[in-house]
Amino acid sequence: MADVQAPPVLDAVAALAELAPIGADPVRGGWSRHLLDDADRAMRAWFVRTAESLELTVETDANANQWATWAPHGATGPAVATGSHLDSVPGGGPLDGPLGVVSALVAVSRLMAEGHTPSRPIVVANFAEEEGARFGVPCLGSQLLAGDIDTDRVRALVDTAGVTYPEAMAAAGHDAAAIGHDAARLSSMALYLELHVEQGCQLAPLGHPVGLATSILAHGRWRVTLTGRGDHAGATELGSRHDPMLVAAAAVQSARARAVGSDPVTRSRATVGKLQVVPGGSNAIASEVRLWLDARAEHDADVRDLVARIVGDIEAAGRAEGCEVTVAEESFSTRVAFDGDLTDRIAAALEPRFGDAPRIPTGAGHDAGILSAHLPSAMLFVRNPDGVSHSPLEGAADEDVRAGVDALAAALRALT
Amino acid sequence: MADVQAPPVLDAVAALAELAPIGADPVRGGWSRHLLDDADRAMRAWFVRTAESLELTVETDANANQWATWAPHGATGPAVATGSHLDSVPGGGPLDGPLGVVSALVAVSRLMAEGHTPSRPIVVANFAEEEGARFGVPCLGSQLLAGDIDTDRVRALVDTAGVTYPEAMAAAGHDAAAIGHDAARLSSMALYLELHVEQGCQLAPLGHPVGLATSILAHGRWRVTLTGRGDHAGATELGSRHDPMLVAAAAVQSARARAVGSDPVTRSRATVGKLQVVPGGSNAIASEVRLWLDARAEHDADVRDLVARIVGDIEAAGRAEGCEVTVAEESFSTRVAFDGDLTDRIAAALEPRFGDAPRIPTGAGHDAGILSAHLPSAMLFVRNPDGVSHSPLEGAADEDVRAGVDALAAALRALT
Repeated sequence: MADVQAPPVLDAVAALAELAPIGADPVRGGWSRHLLDDADRAMRAWFVRTAESLELTVETDANANQWATWAPHGATGPAVATGSHLDSVPGGGPLDGPLGVVSALVAVSRLMAEGHTPSRPIVVANFAEEEGARFGVPCLGSQLLAGDIDTDRVRALVDTAGVTYPEAMAAAGHDAAAIGHDAARLSSMALYLELHVEQGCQLAPLGHPVGLATSILAHGRWRVTLTGRGDHAGATELGSRHDPMLVAAAAVQSARARAVGSDPVTRSRATVGKLQVVPGGSNAIASEVRLWLDARAEHDADVRDLVARIVGDIEAAGRAEGCEVTVAEESFSTRVAFDGDLTDRIAAALEPRFGDAPRIPTGAGHDAGILSAHLPSAMLFVRNPDGVSHSPLEGAADEDVRAGVDALAAALRALT
Repeated sequence: MADVQAPPVLDAVAALAELAPIGADPVRGGWSRHLLDDADRAMRAWFVRTAESLELTVETDANANQWATWAPHGATGPAVATGSHLDSVPGGGPLDGPLGVVSALVAVSRLMAEGHTPSRPIVVANFAEEEGARFGVPCLGSQLLAGDIDTDRVRALVDTAGVTYPEAMAAAGHDAAAIGHDAARLSSMALYLELHVEQGCQLAPLGHPVGLATSILAHGRWRVTLTGRGDHAGATELGSRHDPMLVAAAAVQSARARAVGSDPVTRSRATVGKLQVVPGGSNAIASEVRLWLDARAEHDADVRDLVARIVGDIEAAGRAEGCEVTVAEESFSTRVAFDGDLTDRIAAALEPRFGDAPRIPTGAGHDAGILSAHLPSAMLFVRNPDGVSHSPLEGAADEDVRAGVDALAAALRALT
């Protein structure tokens, strides 16, 4: 007779289907789930419910990160941590980052079902505000945990609706006075392994469903404010205009041109994906344009150099149009090289099922990148057939989603 | 003993001060008052209250335009109509168009006080959705009244929040089934005279507080949709991008360059003042950009030619980036030449107080332009010291505001 008390064995495809209705964005398409908004809170409630169905111990830390711990008898010492994030970019895809959280919970359920007795606790993490879509700072939860960001700066953050970070935290029952470096939590972890859908298209041509990360490009975000003079689009002669849209256009083109110029050597890329026009009337010359420059390259100095060139172009365009230009750095993440020893151990665990899993670099930031400065960290990627990410078109085949769970379960088994 | 029943004599500066708190925009600065939103409804309530304090007969027509009629004993035949609009662009200035409505009510109060006995009724109009800021079609109220726009098209309009025109009308107690050509109202008017703050800076150098309009540039709005492929800003190589922001940048630059090229001959101007990025995440390549092109020139053919050149540039940029380009005309207003005889009569009425008032063209559209195709129409402009319009910085000196009322009162006196 079966033990009716046994936790269920979860299925990743089914779990992702459960999440699909949460935060669907009727305007942009895809999903919008931002720190502690209704959708994010529904995702977090799902995390609690699912982890508790596995009889895991669920906690939320002072930085709004969630943790679900499996520490059966005999599991001692620092934990093997795995997970990802449940928030999204505006109008994002279904897998970045729920795939990593879902796969972690499913892998744990499978290890339980097969009678695995871990030597260390396994803890599943959901990191808060990984995308930085609400308060502008990516990997906010892991940066706070790691003590990598000034807490006064975080408490001063304001979202686009004018809600401050402390107000958003308080509305969800958290106390922003308590945020910051969490040495106890950090030292409770031996390592961190994050599974993520591939961003880019390196695995498909190689014919592999899973791969391992080697590094993350150095990257950062800069907020550029262009101030001109609002006026009437019909009545204002061209010669007397100070139109910041012209300067914004130059910024967009400079970002592409400067990155193309240095791309072959430094893997540079620069993008303007967010731009706001004030006042934004079709018959009004803009008084102000705010845009965000995302710049990345192999090494920190490459990014600095790229941004300096682009800012130089923007300033020149501003002078030509008689507009003010101000530039503020919102975040900067140095190049990450993932732990080679840990990656080797995971590759060995994958070998029987997956052969020689490719090792690939990525241009995308991750909480694993933040944590890599504090504990051995590694990443598993699941094949993305056309490489699209941060878009509703992002996807992975069901069999690849399940292969990712196989890989993560094999790694967790070997590491515990 | 004074007659306690006499209506008050209003002051334009005081009336504008009463309106200042309504619709102040805390984000953009200035004022945002859009068709039948809370601010617009507060403005409309002020119109009713103020007109009733003058014992005028107040009506709202089927197209949501407001009318306040002074028809004392002996005033017969088609009315002399005057007024403007109470809605604004997003983050607009205080005077475009409340100055015209306020000045009309104040002028009527003054004619009453001085015992003027008009030979014709005088009617004060507040035209709905003049700016087109909510539903994208400028001069919507006057176009509907005049039968210049297809009513099915109007009933299909949707604002940026997804509210349809019929829903917005119903929420304010209006029935969108009843909109359209209002022959009775149109034939009840002998002429239309609109006072407006100057947009541009032609009066100040001439040293005149008021001027008269000669013409309105031909003008229109085109909505341009650029569709690329949303993707990750960090993980997507430059060579595989289809980023509609690059095409948008080309559109902004082409609008300026093509207009500058033809400006000396055709008074051409082209502007992108409204632009929306989808999804709008700082670490996401845009999947779609929507932008609005405002183009104007002396003659209709000049505008068509200008827009064709700009669209050609946008299409070329779209092909280069692998993005789709679609262009939809939202509105087109042919060149307006105001009624010369009516303008001469008004100029003669102004002469004793203002001497030879300058006659100037304008690049801005107005309800007077719409009505000019149906009845004799004219415009009075009040000096704008630095010419700024569609901006919180728009303004006029108090003495010029009062001079505008003097001019309008003199014109109404002479015309009735």
